[in-house]
Amino acid sequence: MNVFIVHAHPEPQSFNTALMTLAKEQLSHAGHNVDVSDLYAMNWNPVASANDFAERKSPDYLVYALEQRYSFEQQGIAPDIAAELVKLQKADLIILNFPLFWFSVPAILKGWIDRVLISGLCYGGMRFYDQGGLKGKKVLVTFTLGGREHMFGEQAIHGELIDGMLRPLLRGTLAYVGLEVLPPFIGYHVPYIKPEARQQILDDYSSYLNNVDQLTPLRYPHMDEFDAKLYPKSAT
Amino acid sequence: MNVFIVHAHPEPQSFNTALMTLAKEQLSHAGHNVDVSDLYAMNWNPVASANDFAERKSPDYLVYALEQRYSFEQQGIAPDIAAELVKLQKADLIILNFPLFWFSVPAILKGWIDRVLISGLCYGGMRFYDQGGLKGKKVLVTFTLGGREHMFGEQAIHGELIDGMLRPLLRGTLAYVGLEVLPPFIGYHVPYIKPEARQQILDDYSSYLNNVDQLTPLRYPHMDEFDAKLYPKSAT
Repeated sequence: MNVFIVHAHPEPQSFNTALMTLAKEQLSHAGHNVDVSDLYAMNWNPVASANDFAERKSPDYLVYALEQRYSFEQQGIAPDIAAELVKLQKADLIILNFPLFWFSVPAILKGWIDRVLISGLCYGGMRFYDQGGLKGKKVLVTFTLGGREHMFGEQAIHGELIDGMLRPLLRGTLAYVGLEVLPPFIGYHVPYIKPEARQQILDDYSSYLNNVDQLTPLRYPHMDEFDAKLYPKSAT
Repeated sequence: MNVFIVHAHPEPQSFNTALMTLAKEQLSHAGHNVDVSDLYAMNWNPVASANDFAERKSPDYLVYALEQRYSFEQQGIAPDIAAELVKLQKADLIILNFPLFWFSVPAILKGWIDRVLISGLCYGGMRFYDQGGLKGKKVLVTFTLGGREHMFGEQAIHGELIDGMLRPLLRGTLAYVGLEVLPPFIGYHVPYIKPEARQQILDDYSSYLNNVDQLTPLRYPHMDEFDAKLYPKSAT
Protein backbone atom coordinates (compact mmCIF):
# COMPACT_ATOMS: atom_id res chain seq x y z
CA MET A 1 0.00 0.00 0.00
CA ASN A 2 0.94 3.68 -0.20
CA VAL A 3 1.64 5.29 3.15
CA PHE A 4 1.92 9.05 3.74
CA ILE A 5 3.44 10.22 7.01
CA VAL A 6 2.99 13.87 8.01
CA HIS A 7 5.44 14.65 10.80
CA ALA A 8 5.62 17.80 12.94
CA HIS A 9 8.29 17.95 15.64
CA PRO A 10 10.90 20.74 15.96
CA GLU A 11 13.64 18.46 17.35
CA PRO A 12 15.05 15.84 14.92
CA GLN A 13 16.56 13.88 17.84
CA SER A 14 13.26 13.69 19.72
CA PHE A 15 11.53 10.48 20.75
CA ASN A 16 8.56 11.64 18.70
CA THR A 17 10.79 11.74 15.61
CA ALA A 18 12.02 8.24 16.50
CA LEU A 19 8.42 7.02 16.26
CA MET A 20 8.14 8.56 12.79
CA THR A 21 11.42 6.97 11.71
CA LEU A 22 10.34 3.58 13.03
CA ALA A 23 7.11 3.73 11.01
CA LYS A 24 8.91 4.88 7.88
CA GLU A 25 11.52 2.12 8.06
CA GLN A 26 9.30 -0.73 9.19
CA LEU A 27 6.60 -0.04 6.61
CA SER A 28 9.20 0.39 3.84
CA HIS A 29 10.86 -2.90 4.79
CA ALA A 30 7.45 -4.56 4.67
CA GLY A 31 7.22 -3.56 1.01
CA HIS A 32 5.00 -0.53 1.26
CA ASN A 33 5.71 2.77 -0.48
CA VAL A 34 6.22 5.48 2.14
CA ASP A 35 6.15 9.24 1.56
CA VAL A 36 7.10 11.55 4.43
CA SER A 37 6.34 15.23 4.82
CA ASP A 38 8.54 16.44 7.67
CA LEU A 39 6.90 19.83 8.14
CA TYR A 40 9.65 21.46 10.21
CA ALA A 41 12.36 20.21 7.83
CA MET A 42 10.30 21.49 4.86
CA ASN A 43 9.81 24.88 6.53
CA TRP A 44 6.10 24.38 5.84
CA ASN A 45 4.03 27.56 5.75
CA PRO A 46 0.97 27.03 7.97
CA VAL A 47 -0.85 30.29 7.24
CA ALA A 48 -3.94 30.02 5.02
CA SER A 49 -4.08 33.22 2.97
CA ALA A 50 -4.82 34.77 -0.41
CA ASN A 51 -1.25 33.87 -1.42
CA ASP A 52 -2.39 30.26 -1.81
CA PHE A 53 -4.18 31.02 -5.08
CA ALA A 54 -2.61 31.98 -8.42
CA GLU A 55 -5.88 33.39 -9.70
CA ARG A 56 -8.91 34.38 -7.65
CA LYS A 57 -12.55 33.74 -8.42
CA SER A 58 -13.31 36.74 -6.22
CA PRO A 59 -10.22 38.99 -6.23
CA ASP A 60 -11.68 41.64 -3.91
CA TYR A 61 -13.06 39.55 -1.07
CA LEU A 62 -11.46 36.35 0.20
CA VAL A 63 -13.62 33.38 1.16
CA TYR A 64 -10.86 30.86 1.66
CA ALA A 65 -12.84 27.64 1.08
CA LEU A 66 -14.43 28.96 -2.12
CA GLU A 67 -11.05 29.93 -3.52
CA GLN A 68 -9.66 26.50 -2.57
CA ARG A 69 -12.34 24.85 -4.66
CA TYR A 70 -11.93 27.22 -7.61
CA SER A 71 -8.15 27.14 -7.52
CA PHE A 72 -7.98 23.35 -7.42
CA GLU A 73 -10.31 23.14 -10.45
CA GLN A 74 -8.17 25.70 -12.30
CA GLN A 75 -4.92 24.00 -11.22
CA GLY A 76 -3.86 27.30 -9.69
CA ILE A 77 -3.36 26.28 -6.09
CA ALA A 78 0.02 27.07 -4.49
CA PRO A 79 2.77 24.57 -5.45
CA ASP A 80 3.48 23.55 -1.84
CA ILE A 81 -0.20 22.60 -1.37
CA ALA A 82 -0.38 20.88 -4.75
CA ALA A 83 2.63 18.71 -3.85
CA GLU A 84 0.93 17.59 -0.63
CA LEU A 85 -2.29 16.83 -2.50
CA VAL A 86 -0.44 14.44 -4.82
CA LYS A 87 0.85 12.48 -1.81
CA LEU A 88 -2.56 12.64 -0.11
CA GLN A 89 -4.49 11.38 -3.13
CA LYS A 90 -2.05 8.51 -3.66
CA ALA A 91 -2.13 7.36 -0.03
CA ASP A 92 -4.02 4.36 1.31
CA LEU A 93 -2.89 5.07 4.88
CA ILE A 94 -2.07 8.51 6.26
CA ILE A 95 -0.14 8.80 9.54
CA LEU A 96 -0.08 12.07 11.46
CA ASN A 97 2.90 12.00 13.85
CA PHE A 98 3.25 14.87 16.33
CA PRO A 99 3.67 15.96 19.95
CA LEU A 100 0.41 17.06 21.57
CA PHE A 101 0.48 20.86 22.01
CA TRP A 102 -2.50 22.19 23.99
CA PHE A 103 -4.41 18.92 23.57
CA SER A 104 -4.18 19.43 19.81
CA VAL A 105 -1.74 19.46 16.91
CA PRO A 106 1.17 21.94 16.72
CA ALA A 107 0.32 25.03 14.64
CA ILE A 108 2.54 23.90 11.77
CA LEU A 109 0.39 20.77 11.41
CA LYS A 110 -2.86 22.68 11.94
CA GLY A 111 -1.79 24.79 8.99
CA TRP A 112 -1.20 21.67 6.92
CA ILE A 113 -4.80 20.69 7.69
CA ASP A 114 -6.13 24.21 6.98
CA ARG A 115 -4.34 24.47 3.61
CA VAL A 116 -4.22 20.88 2.29
CA LEU A 117 -7.64 19.43 3.16
CA ILE A 118 -9.24 21.54 0.48
CA SER A 119 -12.90 22.16 -0.13
CA GLY A 120 -14.10 20.42 -3.27
CA LEU A 121 -11.67 17.54 -3.20
CA CYS A 122 -11.89 16.55 0.49
CA TYR A 123 -15.43 17.69 1.36
CA GLY A 124 -18.21 19.92 0.10
CA GLY A 125 -21.98 20.02 -0.08
CA MET A 126 -23.25 16.83 1.55
CA ARG A 127 -19.91 15.04 1.04
CA PHE A 128 -18.61 14.64 4.56
CA TYR A 129 -18.24 11.98 7.28
CA ASP A 130 -18.75 8.60 5.57
CA GLN A 131 -19.41 10.44 2.30
CA GLY A 132 -16.28 12.62 2.60
CA GLY A 133 -13.98 13.07 -0.35
CA LEU A 134 -11.18 10.93 1.11
CA LYS A 135 -13.35 7.87 1.80
CA GLY A 136 -11.63 4.54 1.27
CA LYS A 137 -8.41 5.75 2.91
CA LYS A 138 -7.34 5.17 6.51
CA VAL A 139 -5.67 7.53 8.96
CA LEU A 140 -3.60 6.82 12.06
CA VAL A 141 -2.83 9.52 14.60
CA THR A 142 0.42 8.86 16.51
CA PHE A 143 1.30 11.32 19.24
CA THR A 144 3.35 11.84 22.37
CA LEU A 145 2.45 13.91 25.42
CA GLY A 146 3.62 14.78 28.91
CA GLY A 147 0.44 13.65 30.67
CA ARG A 148 -0.26 10.20 32.07
CA GLU A 149 -3.04 7.86 31.04
CA HIS A 150 -4.94 8.25 34.34
CA MET A 151 -5.36 11.98 33.67
CA PHE A 152 -7.91 11.12 30.97
CA GLY A 153 -11.35 9.55 31.40
CA GLU A 154 -14.83 10.58 32.42
CA GLN A 155 -13.92 11.49 36.02
CA ALA A 156 -10.30 12.38 35.31
CA ILE A 157 -8.79 15.85 35.47
CA HIS A 158 -8.74 16.38 31.69
CA GLY A 159 -11.88 14.36 30.88
CA GLU A 160 -12.14 11.96 27.97
CA LEU A 161 -9.27 11.89 25.49
CA ILE A 162 -10.42 10.15 22.28
CA ASP A 163 -13.97 11.47 22.26
CA GLY A 164 -13.14 14.58 24.30
CA MET A 165 -9.92 16.50 23.78
CA LEU A 166 -9.23 14.81 20.42
CA ARG A 167 -12.75 15.22 19.05
CA PRO A 168 -12.16 18.15 16.69
CA LEU A 169 -9.16 16.35 15.18
CA LEU A 170 -10.44 12.77 14.98
CA ARG A 171 -14.11 13.44 14.29
CA GLY A 172 -14.30 17.07 13.15
CA THR A 173 -11.37 16.84 10.73
CA LEU A 174 -10.26 13.31 9.84
CA ALA A 175 -13.61 11.48 9.97
CA TYR A 176 -15.25 14.58 8.44
CA VAL A 177 -13.26 14.21 5.20
CA GLY A 178 -14.23 10.54 4.96
CA LEU A 179 -11.13 8.89 6.38
CA GLU A 180 -11.43 5.70 8.41
CA VAL A 181 -9.90 6.76 11.72
CA LEU A 182 -7.86 3.99 13.38
CA PRO A 183 -7.44 3.97 17.17
CA PRO A 184 -4.64 6.48 17.90
CA PHE A 185 -1.24 5.28 19.06
CA ILE A 186 -0.29 7.27 22.15
CA GLY A 187 3.05 7.71 23.92
CA TYR A 188 2.24 8.97 27.43
CA HIS A 189 4.49 10.91 29.80
CA VAL A 190 7.37 10.86 27.34
CA PRO A 191 9.50 13.73 28.71
CA TYR A 192 9.64 12.06 32.13
CA ILE A 193 10.21 8.36 31.46
CA LYS A 194 13.36 6.23 31.40
CA PRO A 195 14.99 4.80 28.26
CA GLU A 196 13.52 1.35 28.97
CA ALA A 197 10.01 2.76 29.07
CA ARG A 198 10.65 4.61 25.82
CA GLN A 199 11.91 1.38 24.25
CA GLN A 200 8.70 -0.32 25.36
CA ILE A 201 6.68 2.33 23.53
CA LEU A 202 8.75 1.78 20.38
CA ASP A 203 8.19 -1.99 20.66
CA ASP A 204 4.47 -1.46 21.16
CA TYR A 205 4.35 0.80 18.12
CA SER A 206 6.17 -1.77 16.02
CA SER A 207 3.57 -4.39 16.96
CA TYR A 208 0.79 -1.90 16.36
CA LEU A 209 2.07 -1.21 12.84
CA ASN A 210 2.45 -4.92 12.07
CA ASN A 211 -1.23 -5.30 12.87
CA VAL A 212 -2.46 -2.07 11.28
CA ASP A 213 -4.52 -3.85 8.60
CA GLN A 214 -6.55 -5.65 11.25
CA LEU A 215 -7.60 -2.66 13.33
CA THR A 216 -11.24 -1.64 13.54
CA PRO A 217 -11.77 2.06 12.81
CA LEU A 218 -13.55 4.27 15.33
CA ARG A 219 -17.27 4.80 14.81
CA TYR A 220 -18.40 8.20 13.53
CA PRO A 221 -21.65 9.58 12.06
CA HIS A 222 -23.08 8.18 8.85
CA MET A 223 -24.84 10.62 6.57
CA ASP A 224 -27.83 8.27 6.13
CA GLU A 225 -28.66 8.81 9.82
CA PHE A 226 -29.47 12.46 9.03
CA ASP A 227 -32.00 14.16 6.76
CA ALA A 228 -31.30 16.66 3.99
CA LYS A 229 -31.12 19.53 6.50
CA LEU A 230 -28.84 17.41 8.70
CA TYR A 231 -31.37 16.84 11.47
CA PRO A 232 -31.06 13.34 12.95
CA LYS A 233 -33.68 11.04 11.41
CA SER A 234 -34.12 9.28 14.74
CA ALA A 235 -35.50 12.51 16.26
CA THR A 236 -38.26 12.93 13.65
CA MET B 1 -10.45 47.48 32.48
CA ASN B 2 -7.74 46.39 30.05
CA VAL B 3 -8.98 44.38 27.10
CA PHE B 4 -6.77 42.41 24.72
CA ILE B 5 -8.30 41.25 21.44
CA VAL B 6 -6.44 38.62 19.42
CA HIS B 7 -7.90 38.52 15.93
CA ALA B 8 -7.20 35.99 13.16
CA HIS B 9 -9.06 36.42 9.87
CA PRO B 10 -7.37 36.70 6.45
CA GLU B 11 -10.00 39.06 4.97
CA PRO B 12 -10.14 42.59 6.48
CA GLN B 13 -13.61 43.15 4.99
CA SER B 14 -15.04 39.98 6.53
CA PHE B 15 -18.00 39.83 8.87
CA ASN B 16 -15.67 38.20 11.38
CA THR B 17 -13.45 41.29 11.25
CA ALA B 18 -16.55 43.44 11.72
CA LEU B 19 -17.19 41.64 15.03
CA MET B 20 -13.63 42.43 16.12
CA THR B 21 -14.04 46.09 15.13
CA LEU B 22 -17.34 46.35 16.98
CA ALA B 23 -15.75 45.02 20.18
CA LYS B 24 -12.74 47.30 19.85
CA GLU B 25 -14.86 50.44 19.30
CA GLN B 26 -17.63 49.70 21.77
CA LEU B 27 -15.27 48.78 24.61
CA SER B 28 -13.05 51.80 23.88
CA HIS B 29 -16.05 54.12 23.91
CA ALA B 30 -17.09 52.61 27.23
CA GLY B 31 -13.78 53.81 28.67
CA HIS B 32 -11.79 50.59 28.58
CA ASN B 33 -8.25 50.35 27.26
CA VAL B 34 -8.21 48.03 24.25
CA ASP B 35 -5.15 46.40 22.67
CA VAL B 36 -5.57 44.48 19.43
CA SER B 37 -3.24 41.89 17.90
CA ASP B 38 -4.45 41.40 14.34
CA LEU B 39 -2.38 38.32 13.56
CA TYR B 40 -2.77 38.40 9.76
CA ALA B 41 -1.98 42.13 9.64
CA MET B 42 1.06 41.54 11.89
CA ASN B 43 2.26 38.66 9.70
CA TRP B 44 2.45 36.65 12.93
CA ASN B 45 4.79 33.66 12.84
CA PRO B 46 2.88 30.64 14.20
CA VAL B 47 5.74 28.12 14.20
CA ALA B 48 7.16 27.21 17.62
CA SER B 49 10.86 26.56 17.09
CA ALA B 50 14.37 26.98 18.45
CA ASN B 51 14.40 30.45 16.88
CA ASP B 52 12.15 31.63 19.71
CA PHE B 53 15.04 31.67 22.20
CA ALA B 54 18.06 33.99 22.22
CA GLU B 55 20.00 31.62 24.44
CA ARG B 56 19.30 27.97 25.09
CA LYS B 57 19.44 26.11 28.38
CA SER B 58 20.01 22.96 26.34
CA PRO B 59 21.54 24.03 23.00
CA ASP B 60 21.79 20.51 21.56
CA TYR B 61 18.33 19.14 22.23
CA LEU B 62 15.15 21.22 22.08
CA VAL B 63 12.41 20.69 24.65
CA TYR B 64 10.23 23.64 23.73
CA ALA B 65 8.41 24.12 27.06
CA LEU B 66 11.64 23.97 29.08
CA GLU B 67 13.26 26.58 26.85
CA GLN B 68 10.16 28.79 27.15
CA ARG B 69 10.52 28.77 30.91
CA TYR B 70 14.28 29.39 30.84
CA SER B 71 14.10 32.04 28.17
CA PHE B 72 11.35 33.98 29.93
CA GLU B 73 13.37 34.01 33.15
CA GLN B 74 16.47 35.17 31.25
CA GLN B 75 14.47 37.75 29.27
CA GLY B 76 15.69 36.07 26.10
CA ILE B 77 12.41 35.12 24.51
CA ALA B 78 11.79 36.29 20.91
CA PRO B 79 10.66 39.95 20.69
CA ASP B 80 7.36 39.12 18.95
CA ILE B 81 6.42 36.77 21.81
CA ALA B 82 7.62 39.22 24.47
CA ALA B 83 5.40 41.95 22.99
CA GLU B 84 2.35 39.68 23.21
CA LEU B 85 3.19 38.75 26.79
CA VAL B 86 3.14 42.42 27.80
CA LYS B 87 -0.40 42.76 26.43
CA LEU B 88 -1.46 39.43 27.93
CA GLN B 89 -0.17 40.23 31.41
CA LYS B 90 -1.84 43.64 31.39
CA ALA B 91 -5.23 42.32 30.27
CA ASP B 92 -8.26 41.81 32.50
CA LEU B 93 -10.31 40.44 29.60
CA ILE B 94 -8.88 38.59 26.58
CA ILE B 95 -11.04 38.16 23.48
CA LEU B 96 -10.09 35.58 20.84
CA ASN B 97 -11.89 36.51 17.59
CA PHE B 98 -11.66 34.07 14.67
CA PRO B 99 -13.46 31.99 12.06
CA LEU B 100 -13.79 28.32 13.03
CA PHE B 101 -11.42 26.25 10.83
CA TRP B 102 -11.85 22.49 11.30
CA PHE B 103 -13.82 22.99 14.53
CA SER B 104 -10.81 24.81 15.95
CA VAL B 105 -8.75 27.97 15.61
CA PRO B 106 -6.92 28.87 12.38
CA ALA B 107 -3.27 27.80 12.43
CA ILE B 108 -2.04 31.38 12.82
CA LEU B 109 -3.97 31.60 16.12
CA LYS B 110 -2.93 28.09 17.20
CA GLY B 111 0.62 29.31 16.79
CA TRP B 112 -0.12 32.33 18.98
CA ILE B 113 -1.30 29.88 21.65
CA ASP B 114 1.71 27.56 21.16
CA ARG B 115 4.24 30.40 21.39
CA VAL B 116 2.67 32.95 23.77
CA LEU B 117 1.08 30.82 26.50
CA ILE B 118 4.49 30.00 27.89
CA SER B 119 5.42 27.43 30.47
CA GLY B 120 6.44 29.03 33.74
CA LEU B 121 4.32 32.15 33.44
CA CYS B 122 1.02 30.61 32.30
CA TYR B 123 1.26 27.12 33.80
CA GLY B 124 3.75 24.68 35.26
CA GLY B 125 4.00 22.10 38.01
CA MET B 126 0.61 21.96 39.73
CA ARG B 127 -0.33 25.43 38.49
CA PHE B 128 -3.13 24.77 36.04
CA TYR B 129 -6.93 24.97 35.81
CA ASP B 130 -8.10 27.17 38.72
CA GLN B 131 -4.45 27.45 39.86
CA GLY B 132 -3.19 28.42 36.39
CA GLY B 133 -0.81 31.31 35.94
CA LEU B 134 -3.39 33.61 34.34
CA LYS B 135 -5.99 33.26 37.10
CA GLY B 136 -7.98 36.39 37.81
CA LYS B 137 -8.34 37.22 34.12
CA LYS B 138 -11.33 36.43 31.90
CA VAL B 139 -11.45 35.19 28.33
CA LEU B 140 -14.16 35.43 25.71
CA VAL B 141 -14.08 33.34 22.56
CA THR B 142 -15.96 34.97 19.65
CA PHE B 143 -16.18 32.98 16.45
CA THR B 144 -18.08 32.58 13.20
CA LEU B 145 -18.77 29.37 11.31
CA GLY B 146 -20.67 27.99 8.33
CA GLY B 147 -22.66 25.42 10.30
CA ARG B 148 -26.08 25.94 11.87
CA GLU B 149 -26.95 25.66 15.53
CA HIS B 150 -29.00 22.46 15.06
CA MET B 151 -25.89 20.65 13.81
CA PHE B 152 -24.54 20.65 17.37
CA GLY B 153 -25.89 18.81 20.41
CA GLU B 154 -25.84 15.32 21.85
CA GLN B 155 -27.78 13.68 18.99
CA ALA B 156 -26.70 16.15 16.30
CA ILE B 157 -24.39 15.40 13.41
CA HIS B 158 -21.34 17.08 14.93
CA GLY B 159 -22.13 16.27 18.60
CA GLU B 160 -21.75 18.79 21.41
CA LEU B 161 -20.08 22.10 20.61
CA ILE B 162 -19.01 23.79 23.88
CA ASP B 163 -18.01 20.65 25.75
CA GLY B 164 -17.28 18.63 22.58
CA MET B 165 -15.61 20.20 19.58
CA LEU B 166 -14.42 23.22 21.58
CA ARG B 167 -13.11 21.25 24.54
CA PRO B 168 -9.37 21.41 23.78
CA LEU B 169 -9.61 25.17 23.29
CA LEU B 170 -11.96 26.17 26.12
CA ARG B 171 -10.94 23.61 28.71
CA GLY B 172 -7.59 22.24 27.57
CA THR B 173 -6.07 25.63 26.79
CA LEU B 174 -7.93 28.63 28.22
CA ALA B 175 -9.26 27.11 31.46
CA TYR B 176 -5.97 25.21 31.81
CA VAL B 177 -3.96 28.43 32.16
CA GLY B 178 -6.36 29.69 34.83
CA LEU B 179 -8.57 31.98 32.76
CA GLU B 180 -12.25 32.32 33.61
CA VAL B 181 -13.88 31.20 30.38
CA LEU B 182 -17.03 33.17 29.53
CA PRO B 183 -19.75 31.54 27.41
CA PRO B 184 -18.55 31.91 23.79
CA PHE B 185 -20.27 34.30 21.41
CA ILE B 186 -21.08 32.41 18.21
CA GLY B 187 -22.09 33.66 14.76
CA TYR B 188 -23.67 30.66 13.00
CA HIS B 189 -24.04 30.06 9.25
CA VAL B 190 -22.36 33.37 8.43
CA PRO B 191 -21.36 32.76 4.78
CA TYR B 192 -24.96 31.95 3.86
CA ILE B 193 -27.09 34.53 5.66
CA LYS B 194 -28.60 37.84 4.53
CA PRO B 195 -27.39 41.30 5.63
CA GLU B 196 -30.31 41.62 8.08
CA ALA B 197 -29.33 38.40 9.81
CA ARG B 198 -25.73 39.58 10.01
CA GLN B 199 -26.89 42.86 11.51
CA GLN B 200 -28.84 40.90 14.11
CA ILE B 201 -25.65 39.07 15.09
CA LEU B 202 -23.82 42.41 15.44
CA ASP B 203 -26.66 43.75 17.61
CA ASP B 204 -26.59 40.62 19.74
CA TYR B 205 -22.83 40.94 20.16
CA SER B 206 -23.18 44.57 21.20
CA SER B 207 -25.65 43.57 23.91
CA TYR B 208 -23.42 40.67 24.92
CA LEU B 209 -20.46 43.02 25.37
CA ASN B 210 -22.53 45.52 27.35
CA ASN B 211 -23.30 42.72 29.76
CA VAL B 212 -19.90 41.06 29.79
CA ASP B 213 -19.22 41.85 33.46
CA GLN B 214 -22.34 39.97 34.51
CA LEU B 215 -21.69 36.69 32.73
CA THR B 216 -21.07 33.51 34.69
CA PRO B 217 -17.93 31.65 33.56
CA LEU B 218 -18.15 28.04 32.47
CA ARG B 219 -17.36 25.41 35.10
CA TYR B 220 -14.03 23.59 34.82
CA PRO B 221 -11.99 21.34 37.13
CA HIS B 222 -10.65 22.66 40.43
CA MET B 223 -7.30 21.38 41.54
CA ASP B 224 -8.60 20.67 45.07
CA GLU B 225 -10.83 17.95 43.60
CA PHE B 226 -7.69 15.95 42.71
CA ASP B 227 -4.86 14.47 44.75
CA ALA B 228 -1.13 15.13 44.34
CA LYS B 229 -0.90 12.57 41.53
CA LEU B 230 -3.97 14.10 39.91
CA TYR B 231 -6.30 11.20 40.65
CA PRO B 232 -9.83 12.40 41.47
CA LYS B 233 -10.32 12.48 45.26
CA SER B 234 -13.92 11.38 44.83
CA ALA B 235 -12.71 8.02 43.43
CA THR B 236 -10.50 7.19 46.41
